[in-house]
Amino acid sequence: MQKTRLDLARIQTARQAIDPLFLDSPLYPCAGLEADLGCAVSLKLETVNPVRSFKARGTEIIASRLAANGQHAVVCASAGNLGQALAWSGRSRGLDVTVVASRSAPAIKLERIRALGADLVLVDGDYDVACERASAISQERGIRRIEDSVDVETCDGAATIGLELVSGPAQFDAVLVALGTGALAGGVGYAVKSLAPEVEVICVQPQGAPAMTRSWHARSVITTESTDTIADGVAGRVPNPDALADLLVVADDAVLVEESSITEGMRLLLHHAGLVVEPSAALGIAALLEDRDRFAGKRVATIVCGSNVDMDAYHRWVGTAPAPAAIVNG
Amino acid sequence: MQKTRLDLARIQTARQAIDPLFLDSPLYPCAGLEADLGCAVSLKLETVNPVRSFKARGTEIIASRLAANGQHAVVCASAGNLGQALAWSGRSRGLDVTVVASRSAPAIKLERIRALGADLVLVDGDYDVACERASAISQERGIRRIEDSVDVETCDGAATIGLELVSGPAQFDAVLVALGTGALAGGVGYAVKSLAPEVEVICVQPQGAPAMTRSWHARSVITTESTDTIADGVAGRVPNPDALADLLVVADDAVLVEESSITEGMRLLLHHAGLVVEPSAALGIAALLEDRDRFAGKRVATIVCGSNVDMDAYHRWVGTAPAPAAIVNG
Repeated sequence: MQKTRLDLARIQTARQAIDPLFLDSPLYPCAGLEADLGCAVSLKLETVNPVRSFKARGTEIIASRLAANGQHAVVCASAGNLGQALAWSGRSRGLDVTVVASRSAPAIKLERIRALGADLVLVDGDYDVACERASAISQERGIRRIEDSVDVETCDGAATIGLELVSGPAQFDAVLVALGTGALAGGVGYAVKSLAPEVEVICVQPQGAPAMTRSWHARSVITTESTDTIADGVAGRVPNPDALADLLVVADDAVLVEESSITEGMRLLLHHAGLVVEPSAALGIAALLEDRDRFAGKRVATIVCGSNVDMDAYHRWVGTAPAPAAIVNG
Repeated sequence: MQKTRLDLARIQTARQAIDPLFLDSPLYPCAGLEADLGCAVSLKLETVNPVRSFKARGTEIIASRLAANGQHAVVCASAGNLGQALAWSGRSRGLDVTVVASRSAPAIKLERIRALGADLVLVDGDYDVACERASAISQERGIRRIEDSVDVETCDGAATIGLELVSGPAQFDAVLVALGTGALAGGVGYAVKSLAPEVEVICVQPQGAPAMTRSWHARSVITTESTDTIADGVAGRVPNPDALADLLVVADDAVLVEESSITEGMRLLLHHAGLVVEPSAALGIAALLEDRDRFAGKRVATIVCGSNVDMDAYHRWVGTAPAPAAIVNG
């Protein structure tokens, strides 16, 4: 394998900095999905932890290093999950955490960032606008800015998922990974390809936010003017060239899926696994739905990467009606 | 502690017979629940495995022993989850599994039992009627009958959950456990009281199925004529005296909850944890809702013991409307 920014020994060491709450997440076959999809589907579940996403694996590494180096403050831009995870990891280590997010991010993500004691700065605009503001805050205040997929610890954290995927007894033909900034796919892909190169690593992105997938196929950075997808967690316009370079080494394919497949994937995870997930977490199932022939009879694993979703929107997408507010809040 | 049927060394040994898929389930604080309930709530999640309940911990022990002893067939009565778990554990060990269940058990439970290759016998009547039929089949065919809470392996399996609850870094003031036959509560309670006697063990049963709770308070077996609860997994009328005797040693309290608290508990787990659970799995949250003063500021853990629930019924109970069937099955 060609070199990437990642290193197996470093990832294994970094694992020790991560609170066990976020490690060794469940990995199990979901027979109901197999019946519906025609392939054996195992779920790697990153939603059953205090921040309901995989992001704390990376922020635990980052926050422990910042604290060890005597740092007191940190800022990040976030689609919502990175900010929540950094707020969690920073809180227990005495770090002042500032999170910059889009005003249109899911309310549940913004609420949880505030509830965890972080300073939340809202911007008008999308994730890439939030990145610009986070960069400005970093320079003004002289504090470290954490950037998803740029700071390699975010990839190392994700890579610990890959280690777990290929070090258990279960064997897979393919691993399906949500693709956004590339931290998750690059990290998981690196670990998988290092330890089990025969396993296909397939990245999945929405048709409505295709910048990184287009870049992967073109082998150079392609940006887009806008995004149009419910999968807020992966909706970036401006790929990071380093993350792309890594992905060109470790990914076997990158595919785009329709919005209707994402909502159908969410519905299948609700019905067959009892899991409410955010749209980004259903991208793998969406890819299985769109290319049944490719995966027929195969053993696949997909990472259910987050479950921070506003319930009203969830019910609208999945086709259930929300409970009356008076009962929900009762 | 007075003697029970359980033994710590035996449980620790039995753990080795259990497929790791069912061990070391997630245990994590759910901050959203804390805000709503006024106490720190950790979830011990027994739903994220191939049978979506804790029951396979016991059936793995049972099936491995039966296979080691050259047995080829086994029968059990089940409210649904034990049968599914025995079907799973028996299948991989070459056992012919017969499950007797009520015709009115949730369709998802019956479907999964069949899908796992077990022979499903349906009876008109409730769990205790199914028990009588299973006993008759056992005698007719000369095969071993597995009975929840009577066969101590079902308690040993549950006790491995208790071991995990008190051997991690998290500390609790109380553990809330669903009470049905007493296998779960007795097993978990034994392990908790053996290793962390200061932790309160509180059993929770629906008002509509109070036989074991009444028996616990009376210190002798009290049966009921009927049951009336949506919590099908714990709806027994005829307590087993041995399970009651164990429970009298290891439980600090047994409380009854209203149906409306169970559905509110299910709703809270959906909204704050993204989890669809069956009614029995929300009994602990229901108890917190009904006695906020008792638990104010405490650190509690509750076992989310199963998620096999028919989605139409679920939506009706939780107050959401189901998706149109055409979309669900699309």
